[in-house]
Amino acid sequence: MILTKIGSIIKQNDNFAIISHFSPDGDAIGSSLALYNMLIENGKSVDIYNQDEVPKRLKFLPYSNYIKNQLLDKKYECVFVLDCGDKDRIGNLVDIFNKTNLIVNIDHHISNTLFADINYVDSNASSVGEIIYNLLKINGFEISKNTAMCLYTSIVSDTGGLKYSNTTSMTLNIAGDLINTGINFTEINRILFNTMTKSQLKLLSKVISTLELYKNDSIAIMHVNKQMLEECGANEDDASDMVNYARDIDTVELGIFIKEVDTNKFKVSLRSKNKVDVRLIAEKFNGGGHVRAAGFTIEGDFETVKKNILEVVSKYWK
Amino acid sequence: MILTKIGSIIKQNDNFAIISHFSPDGDAIGSSLALYNMLIENGKSVDIYNQDEVPKRLKFLPYSNYIKNQLLDKKYECVFVLDCGDKDRIGNLVDIFNKTNLIVNIDHHISNTLFADINYVDSNASSVGEIIYNLLKINGFEISKNTAMCLYTSIVSDTGGLKYSNTTSMTLNIAGDLINTGINFTEINRILFNTMTKSQLKLLSKVISTLELYKNDSIAIMHVNKQMLEECGANEDDASDMVNYARDIDTVELGIFIKEVDTNKFKVSLRSKNKVDVRLIAEKFNGGGHVRAAGFTIEGDFETVKKNILEVVSKYWK
Ligand SMILES: [Mn+2]
Ligand SMILES: [Mn+2]
Repeated sequence: MILTKIGSIIKQNDNFAIISHFSPDGDAIGSSLALYNMLIENGKSVDIYNQDEVPKRLKFLPYSNYIKNQLLDKKYECVFVLDCGDKDRIGNLVDIFNKTNLIVNIDHHISNTLFADINYVDSNASSVGEIIYNLLKINGFEISKNTAMCLYTSIVSDTGGLKYSNTTSMTLNIAGDLINTGINFTEINRILFNTMTKSQLKLLSKVISTLELYKNDSIAIMHVNKQMLEECGANEDDASDMVNYARDIDTVELGIFIKEVDTNKFKVSLRSKNKVDVRLIAEKFNGGGHVRAAGFTIEGDFETVKKNILEVVSKYWK
Repeated sequence: MILTKIGSIIKQNDNFAIISHFSPDGDAIGSSLALYNMLIENGKSVDIYNQDEVPKRLKFLPYSNYIKNQLLDKKYECVFVLDCGDKDRIGNLVDIFNKTNLIVNIDHHISNTLFADINYVDSNASSVGEIIYNLLKINGFEISKNTAMCLYTSIVSDTGGLKYSNTTSMTLNIAGDLINTGINFTEINRILFNTMTKSQLKLLSKVISTLELYKNDSIAIMHVNKQMLEECGANEDDASDMVNYARDIDTVELGIFIKEVDTNKFKVSLRSKNKVDVRLIAEKFNGGGHVRAAGFTIEGDFETVKKNILEVVSKYWK
């Protein structure tokens, strides 16, 4: 059993590195730090890496400030690569492959290319955090409160707060075991899901004020442009999830968010609730995506662009 | 064991009523409908009551349209009273006590007055939904997909999406068992936690646009008045949770929300994150509440009121 084998590797070695994918999310950072905390609690020597900065909202995690963005001039007995579907996801720290003779790849992406010496890929796991939990349990490693904070953060990050369809009864059981360690999970959830900067909040206000509804309030359009971002001291990323506010109106089936990325150039996000296949709409504009979430890029002046989109969308309306 | 006894009552009788507290929430409606669905699946004759209308967001629950607001001229072998700390919580349907010789009270409020013939009160349960789950399990009643939808709704409603501190590992295990029935829990969560009317969304935009920050952005004040409500076609309730947007700004410790309830009369809500005891502040204005959530009513013109509040708050600031 691969997890037992990985457990033996941990027990038999002293000198580890951990790395996860660039532009790290809560699962990349949370699962890395969970493994880090457990290893140092067991007296191991460990370096933890990521190409990029830890997102601000994840800095409450224990030892997040130990994550290095540049490789040390060192060799490792074993390097763990977490939450990376392929080698390229490591980014410009990929040279870490030359610093060890034993790479262990732990991941939950079904597309994983099995690039390592030992590969454990479980695409049914909600998150790498869930896999690390199992690794620790199966091998009898204690899960401290620090480790539990990191694992809980991994799991709720990748499941949108135990809500997305990748949540299983196993996921919920694990979350239950983790909260039994006494972690302040209410605070963790507030930090992860209910925190905005004042710029984001002001931008949200402006974006909502652009709301237009069509077809008996079943289509909602909102937009953001460079001027609005500037007025709020916000950046493009700050607007990234706002399309959901359009879709989540009670009467709405289709939410459309139009983001100005350059003069007369727009990125359009589409979200549907139950009926409309937004991928089909996105494909008409040479974009793509999934049934409920898709997008495309389009050029023209704003009013013409909006009219074009509404014309195409109308064809999918009964 | 009381739950076994209640199980026997269910098995030995045919004619039931179920009632829950007025101004019903997700737990009152969800637990009532869970018990209703199970009973009718077992061939029982059941009437389900609540003094008030089912909130719109809960109308997706199976048989929610069967909930009656007026008592039928009937007798019952047994009446279940759910999620009511005392008899008064039944409201103007309290006459149901005269329509049976056997009242069963199932609740999770520690203050429960044990007003019934049989009382099962578990203050460690996150929700009555959690207790009904145990009732069904212990007595070997099958939990259908319909029943599971209602129980899941109960539990996530009273735990704020499995996030509040009343969530236990038991709660999470039960949620896991419920999602194994194949319910669309992602959709249920969207309906319960991410749905706004267009009036609410427009109001949110206006309310955020009133944001003022003080003391190095650690105090946030937002307000709403009658005119704003009118312009959005919204009512006072639509603004009820917006104080959280103030508190949830990353730099903020204290969120203050001022709601005009009449000319020169305001209801003020206070929310703190980690440090400020807002009950102390509310008490200075003859209000009350808890350490992290409190409120009071105050008279005067808006600018004077705001100035007064900030003056008192300043005394609690280092
Ligand atoms: Mn990831
Ligand atoms: Mn209730």
